[in-house]
Amino acid sequence: MWRKQDNTVQIGVDYYPEQWDSSLWEEDIQLMKVTGVRVVRVAEFAWSRLEPSSGIYEFDWLDKVLNLFHKYGIGVVLGTPTNTPPRWLTDLRPDILPVSADGSLHHPGVRGHRCYNSESLQLYGLRIVERMAEHFGEHPAVIGWQIDNEFGMTDCHCSRCSARFSEWVKRKYGTLAAVNKAWGTVVWSGEYSEWSQIGAPLGGSPFQNPSYLLDYDRFQWDAVTEFQRCQIDMLRRLCPGHFITHNFHSYPQRLDLYRLGKDLDVASFDYYPNTSPDKQSTGPYSGALSLDLTRGIKRRNFWIMEQLSGPPGCWFPMWRTPYPGFIRAFAWQAIARGADTVVHFRWRSAVAGAEQFWHGLIDHSNVPGRKFEEFAVLCSEVNALSNQLKGTELKHEAAILYSPEQLAALRIQPQAEGLDYYENIKDYHRALTKLGIGCDVIDWNEPLDGYKLIVAPGLYLMNEEAAARLEKFAADGGSLVLTSRSGVKNMDNQCEMMPLPGRLARCAGIVVEEYDPIGGDIHSIVDADGRSFECSQWCDLVSPREADTLMRYGGDFYAGKPAVTVNAFGRGQVYYLGTHAEESYLKRLFFKIAGRQKLTMFPNLPEGVQITIRSGKNKRFMFVLNLSRESRKVTLPGAYQSILYEEPRGRELEMEPYGVDILEISSNQS
Amino acid sequence: MWRKQDNTVQIGVDYYPEQWDSSLWEEDIQLMKVTGVRVVRVAEFAWSRLEPSSGIYEFDWLDKVLNLFHKYGIGVVLGTPTNTPPRWLTDLRPDILPVSADGSLHHPGVRGHRCYNSESLQLYGLRIVERMAEHFGEHPAVIGWQIDNEFGMTDCHCSRCSARFSEWVKRKYGTLAAVNKAWGTVVWSGEYSEWSQIGAPLGGSPFQNPSYLLDYDRFQWDAVTEFQRCQIDMLRRLCPGHFITHNFHSYPQRLDLYRLGKDLDVASFDYYPNTSPDKQSTGPYSGALSLDLTRGIKRRNFWIMEQLSGPPGCWFPMWRTPYPGFIRAFAWQAIARGADTVVHFRWRSAVAGAEQFWHGLIDHSNVPGRKFEEFAVLCSEVNALSNQLKGTELKHEAAILYSPEQLAALRIQPQAEGLDYYENIKDYHRALTKLGIGCDVIDWNEPLDGYKLIVAPGLYLMNEEAAARLEKFAADGGSLVLTSRSGVKNMDNQCEMMPLPGRLARCAGIVVEEYDPIGGDIHSIVDADGRSFECSQWCDLVSPREADTLMRYGGDFYAGKPAVTVNAFGRGQVYYLGTHAEESYLKRLFFKIAGRQKLTMFPNLPEGVQITIRSGKNKRFMFVLNLSRESRKVTLPGAYQSILYEEPRGRELEMEPYGVDILEISSNQS
Amino acid sequence: MWRKQDNTVQIGVDYYPEQWDSSLWEEDIQLMKVTGVRVVRVAEFAWSRLEPSSGIYEFDWLDKVLNLFHKYGIGVVLGTPTNTPPRWLTDLRPDILPVSADGSLHHPGVRGHRCYNSESLQLYGLRIVERMAEHFGEHPAVIGWQIDNEFGMTDCHCSRCSARFSEWVKRKYGTLAAVNKAWGTVVWSGEYSEWSQIGAPLGGSPFQNPSYLLDYDRFQWDAVTEFQRCQIDMLRRLCPGHFITHNFHSYPQRLDLYRLGKDLDVASFDYYPNTSPDKQSTGPYSGALSLDLTRGIKRRNFWIMEQLSGPPGCWFPMWRTPYPGFIRAFAWQAIARGADTVVHFRWRSAVAGAEQFWHGLIDHSNVPGRKFEEFAVLCSEVNALSNQLKGTELKHEAAILYSPEQLAALRIQPQAEGLDYYENIKDYHRALTKLGIGCDVIDWNEPLDGYKLIVAPGLYLMNEEAAARLEKFAADGGSLVLTSRSGVKNMDNQCEMMPLPGRLARCAGIVVEEYDPIGGDIHSIVDADGRSFECSQWCDLVSPREADTLMRYGGDFYAGKPAVTVNAFGRGQVYYLGTHAEESYLKRLFFKIAGRQKLTMFPNLPEGVQITIRSGKNKRFMFVLNLSRESRKVTLPGAYQSILYEEPRGRELEMEPYGVDILEISSNQS
Repeated sequence: MWRKQDNTVQIGVDYYPEQWDSSLWEEDIQLMKVTGVRVVRVAEFAWSRLEPSSGIYEFDWLDKVLNLFHKYGIGVVLGTPTNTPPRWLTDLRPDILPVSADGSLHHPGVRGHRCYNSESLQLYGLRIVERMAEHFGEHPAVIGWQIDNEFGMTDCHCSRCSARFSEWVKRKYGTLAAVNKAWGTVVWSGEYSEWSQIGAPLGGSPFQNPSYLLDYDRFQWDAVTEFQRCQIDMLRRLCPGHFITHNFHSYPQRLDLYRLGKDLDVASFDYYPNTSPDKQSTGPYSGALSLDLTRGIKRRNFWIMEQLSGPPGCWFPMWRTPYPGFIRAFAWQAIARGADTVVHFRWRSAVAGAEQFWHGLIDHSNVPGRKFEEFAVLCSEVNALSNQLKGTELKHEAAILYSPEQLAALRIQPQAEGLDYYENIKDYHRALTKLGIGCDVIDWNEPLDGYKLIVAPGLYLMNEEAAARLEKFAADGGSLVLTSRSGVKNMDNQCEMMPLPGRLARCAGIVVEEYDPIGGDIHSIVDADGRSFECSQWCDLVSPREADTLMRYGGDFYAGKPAVTVNAFGRGQVYYLGTHAEESYLKRLFFKIAGRQKLTMFPNLPEGVQITIRSGKNKRFMFVLNLSRESRKVTLPGAYQSILYEEPRGRELEMEPYGVDILEISSNQS
Repeated sequence: MWRKQDNTVQIGVDYYPEQWDSSLWEEDIQLMKVTGVRVVRVAEFAWSRLEPSSGIYEFDWLDKVLNLFHKYGIGVVLGTPTNTPPRWLTDLRPDILPVSADGSLHHPGVRGHRCYNSESLQLYGLRIVERMAEHFGEHPAVIGWQIDNEFGMTDCHCSRCSARFSEWVKRKYGTLAAVNKAWGTVVWSGEYSEWSQIGAPLGGSPFQNPSYLLDYDRFQWDAVTEFQRCQIDMLRRLCPGHFITHNFHSYPQRLDLYRLGKDLDVASFDYYPNTSPDKQSTGPYSGALSLDLTRGIKRRNFWIMEQLSGPPGCWFPMWRTPYPGFIRAFAWQAIARGADTVVHFRWRSAVAGAEQFWHGLIDHSNVPGRKFEEFAVLCSEVNALSNQLKGTELKHEAAILYSPEQLAALRIQPQAEGLDYYENIKDYHRALTKLGIGCDVIDWNEPLDGYKLIVAPGLYLMNEEAAARLEKFAADGGSLVLTSRSGVKNMDNQCEMMPLPGRLARCAGIVVEEYDPIGGDIHSIVDADGRSFECSQWCDLVSPREADTLMRYGGDFYAGKPAVTVNAFGRGQVYYLGTHAEESYLKRLFFKIAGRQKLTMFPNLPEGVQITIRSGKNKRFMFVLNLSRESRKVTLPGAYQSILYEEPRGRELEMEPYGVDILEISSNQS
Repeated sequence: MWRKQDNTVQIGVDYYPEQWDSSLWEEDIQLMKVTGVRVVRVAEFAWSRLEPSSGIYEFDWLDKVLNLFHKYGIGVVLGTPTNTPPRWLTDLRPDILPVSADGSLHHPGVRGHRCYNSESLQLYGLRIVERMAEHFGEHPAVIGWQIDNEFGMTDCHCSRCSARFSEWVKRKYGTLAAVNKAWGTVVWSGEYSEWSQIGAPLGGSPFQNPSYLLDYDRFQWDAVTEFQRCQIDMLRRLCPGHFITHNFHSYPQRLDLYRLGKDLDVASFDYYPNTSPDKQSTGPYSGALSLDLTRGIKRRNFWIMEQLSGPPGCWFPMWRTPYPGFIRAFAWQAIARGADTVVHFRWRSAVAGAEQFWHGLIDHSNVPGRKFEEFAVLCSEVNALSNQLKGTELKHEAAILYSPEQLAALRIQPQAEGLDYYENIKDYHRALTKLGIGCDVIDWNEPLDGYKLIVAPGLYLMNEEAAARLEKFAADGGSLVLTSRSGVKNMDNQCEMMPLPGRLARCAGIVVEEYDPIGGDIHSIVDADGRSFECSQWCDLVSPREADTLMRYGGDFYAGKPAVTVNAFGRGQVYYLGTHAEESYLKRLFFKIAGRQKLTMFPNLPEGVQITIRSGKNKRFMFVLNLSRESRKVTLPGAYQSILYEEPRGRELEMEPYGVDILEISSNQS
């Protein structure tokens, strides 16, 4: 019935049968069926119910639940429950508990109380996964697995982590001399004379050696990846027909998403768009970036494993309730940007435990209300279009490069007040999105074939291979956008002894003479016609070698100095932005580049309106979303048929608040 | 000479003979006598002087002091010194020291370095209390005892606390299955499989299970209560003629005031009204609430055991010096609201130790100045009226219900930005106070007989018994005011699976369809005539069943939806406020209800003016206080005789800044 | 070639040969030579390279470096490397690592990971110093030593610190009875019954006994001083021809600078003036105070051991790059205020380690740029004037008294919001500096001979000896300025039982009746002509005894009460400022006093312009500095010859942004 990596477009819910009286199960599942729910996720926190004491398994209750789902034709994703080791286990094997940098223990009582490097966790965790796979692997309701839940950094500094890190370092560098060189430990007499001196950072001081800190981050990424891989290997062996995913949560994550993603069949994301009216002008764009990032993890369609269904809250004050249309519109946004399945968190709000006020589709009263009605509409809409949308994907000629390593390195050493790697990525992505230029967000190590525009903010760490790949992209005709703080360091997080932007100076055709970390101060850049734009964070004083100057600084002692340049490089162009310019300039620049590269764009979108295109074999669908509390009028390049409302639409589209439309683009339309 | 629960209206001071050269004692006490001081509190921090090493008692010095007090006719309240175990004791028995949630020790060197659950503390603490009772119990100067000092939460997480909590839980629930059910530990695999797994919360994470956290609070309240009770039992046995009190300090306290109060003869409060001009418009009302709360502990008159005498300060920057009249006016405010004895902290500012800048009546120089002169006036005024005021009390037909459990539960899970249980209580109390409607503030578990208006904000936790009591109150003709976030949970801190306001829906005649936690956003409610008032924090979308709508929302997607309703219930009415409205609306509503219920009120009081009435057998006195830096004109319902100034007063009263008047209401006046 | 305490006026750089490939050494040093660098500091963090394992010394590499410096005629200051114990040592002797008040360890990986009281540190630290002294002591390039690096408080609470503190207390007080009395431990039953109970403060509570806390500070100051003295004794014995210094860093330091300074030949300061345009109006004045403070440490000329060369940054966001002229101007400011040698930090920005973005003169690229060119100009200017400036010093008739003890005591017990001892010192110093009144900043225990004006803010702790010294100063004709919070306490940090300002009441001719800690509230003071000035922080209600009233309060209940008084005392005057007045009043007051005392002043300086005079035998040079981003016009008392530009200057001096001029004052000019 279900296939691996199933790409059905469908709606699901997260369900916690263990939290409810069993008398409610069939009633709940029947209502799911009626509402149009096609898939559920269960069991990711149920370890204590599946294995109430060591080696004693109780799977009957879950069998009953799975049977009910099967009876009603709803597919099930099983979560492996390793995020929440039960109390008998942490009692028996306290080495499972993580230790923070100040030596304090992460006590049980909350989620995520486990060190990925703990051998006990690995042992007992794999055992429960194995039992579950053996027992449930053949159940006809089960379609796939979610590993653990919302991986984060271990944030563990236990002796086991220290020992494994020391081994990791030894594998990477071979000799202490090589470590001392790569990390530059001579500074402040930090040279290691024994392997045992190398361990997890303790004390939490920001003054630690940055090369060391970056490697500790990499080590932790490897640890999570390995922890996941053991479970994946087990499941692949025992349940070869099932797909495997993991649910990433809010970005930026201090994780190597791409290495984790490599081992998965499909990436998932937990999507909680901010419901506050105050976030209306930024939230839908940050959300778009999160979705594009998730699509980039495996460079194909993905799942939403948790989609907002009501106001979050619990250990923090509750958010605003979602405005009418909000729940539906943001679910459609996920699909518009490449989600196939959207699983809503959660069926019903919990009446017990710490997440009582992280609201579900149905409130504690168990009386379905406005939110549930909206969800029911969504289900019927998605089910109606499921066949048409199946197999469609987003195809883009523009991409933003993203790098967990740059994020880590720039977190370790902040450059200027307000200069934040991820926030800047948001700014570039938002400018593209507002122009209706679809873009991918991909690992900076990926091949760049097929793209015409690459935006590569803050490539702070650089090596010759990456520099060459970027050069080739430009030489072959691409437009490459680079920014300040590129090429500053080698991959060991040591500064390069070469003029900035280091290895990227060749293709940018410039050198940076000097810089001014202006932080929150507002400066300006001016074009040849005197048009002025604000800039902040950083000012590189650019000295063009082969490049042409596009913008010059409008003030300070470097007034008139080049700030933005473009270099003809092979058949392409390399832009260098020596400062962080305001959105209107970024839109202006990208508009120009998109025109030159003939990218599809919708440059006159009103605030809050987003357009994306999913296309498949002989079909193309334009998703038009008004992600705002106001009505919007959108002018389109042509007239189309709405497949959502089964009505024809003119060039002028009237969108109600949180309005959604899906238009079919016939083959002779752009 | 002194009787238990003496209700003399009098002024006292806190005195620390152990801190001063004995040559000063008689001089100080003589001056007290001359000034009109009738009572002192001593010895609550003097353990190291009373028992300089284990089992060695030195009581002579205190005998001398008591003799001097007796000589000058000043009564003495002795403090039991268990707040500050001496160094020899913490050396000998380090288990006395509390452990915080992160495992760090509360080292000696400060006050309160003791775990209430420590057996060593109980042993050595009771021993010194016993010796003191034996030695000083018959001294003619001694009139009563204060237990410990300013109880707070233990905030202890030591292994003894863990073990005792586990026993407490076992006593309450009997089986682990019952615990797991009551706490809903299945969520996140938190189920307990051994009693030993149940202990004090460690790590301080706000993500802990809220049912567990609430029970840990209750356990701590019991621990403090039991700690106090042991001392009380001892003193009752050895000093049967003495009264016993405890000095509560600033509210809200994370304690069950009512259970602590049950064991006392009289409640005391440490009253430090804020001297800052910036707090002028709120401070006198917060203070009024504190006093009414204290009166509610035992539902009778009380003591002030520490009354502001100069700017506090020490480990924080000093406050403003009290404005002329401030010290006197706030002492009279205490009496006006039910204090019989007001003890000022402190006679003279300390020259040593951590409290040097918590100023007393006399500065370090030992030259009495402006503050002391004002105090002397106060003493003579109070002494002059003492006989008249004796036995008078406040009698009110309105009450606000207060609940330490609601406070705790709402602290564990914040509902919305700005929604604070105690702050909201303040708002309701201030609206009543500004209308001159006297009210009591009582434990929500108390019987409600005799009241006509009950304001019950945020009854978040609810059980059938409380719901029935409230229903009966309304059915019998009372006006009951309920608010949003009522009936949300059962007493286990689990959400009820019933429409809000849960068990209170019956009497309110409504259900809440949905809610919007608007937090700091400002919304509006509008009445039938279009009058609009601001509201914030929370918006329940109310669906009246039997109730009538009073106010509707003025905006957002629920514009026009009912926000405030009234339900005729039996012979009374139940008001439901689905949102937190601004003060002017609350005053409007209470004015209407007070009119309907014929409550005494003074609805046109100027800002800062408060009126209360103390009445006794055949006598009624109206206290008119101007608690502001400006002159105020007050219009009264009639002309009265001032017993303070022994002058007749017209209907128009001119009040100087911090002016006080006390008027006798003859029997034919309201 | 070099003499002890050499007073050559010259420029140097900080250089870290161990951080660079040895192939760069000669190239770097050659460029230094060409640029005009005369001195370098090396090796203060190089312990792991000098002693790579216990007892194994590798001095060859440093020999080579020293030989190169000698070859190019550049003098070398060697740092003792005890700030950064290498990992083999902290492995071997973990007692070296400091323990913080919460019991957590200061792990290696950062600088300063050593407890001054650790016997292991003393043993191994002295051993490396001895070896270095023996080996390098005779090297002709070496001219002197820097002890350790930027001493700070130990901030250590280890058991060794506790034990040594207990011994220190025993030495100071003799008996526990004396300790208990001096600290007033009777408060809160804190009396000590065993010496072992006395230890480092644990838990970090601000509620600790203030007398105890002040003594713990003093103990720590002694520990640092003793730690330094051991190294100094060793070096004096082995290298009698070398001078010894220590580099103090940003003020206020929680150290007794004066006791540390006593053992040094010359004081040094690490000077990082803030580059932000936002700090333009305050930074140059704070900097002037830092320099005057440093000159006051030994009451003679000093060194800058680290002078700003580019934007600092690393574990915090980078600062703005220095504006053109900034680097040069602030180096000249240092010289103008008594620096003889100015050593720039650092030659080239580090490519490795935690200080990568604490920029040097040359950027990571190793391409000298704008900053380096400016430095080169500075070098040639200083070298050209070196002979003329040699031996010149600043001679002032005004002084501000500074006291590490007052700083410590006022930190332990904050008096009022915004009342900060050091910030107030800044205010008084800035007022003097803006009037062009040169002043010294000296230890409050120093003799006052030769001064005509003493400004003594916040002499909170007082003893009879200091009071007598101040009285004598005034009686002999001096003008003494006292402020509120003077004479509050004795040296044990206990309040005096006498009217304020305590022992200073005699000379001030007033008593303080009462005070109002107004904190951030703004009040006013008014003179006899109705001119009004703002004041804040504190209001003493002054009662003149013999004094005359200068200013009265303009509001609150003490409107009209004296606020500022002057008392004719012997042949001088004692001013008492009962409140903290705004700058314009301070300037007005100091102008009047300076006129009366005939002090040299330049009362009409534009914002940012500072004038100082260095004079020597038969020579006087006026330094005129424009420390702002704007051009300024300065009117001088006469026409002079510029020795910097070798041009005559008129009375009107046009100063460009960050402009510098140095004028020769002929003997017949003021």
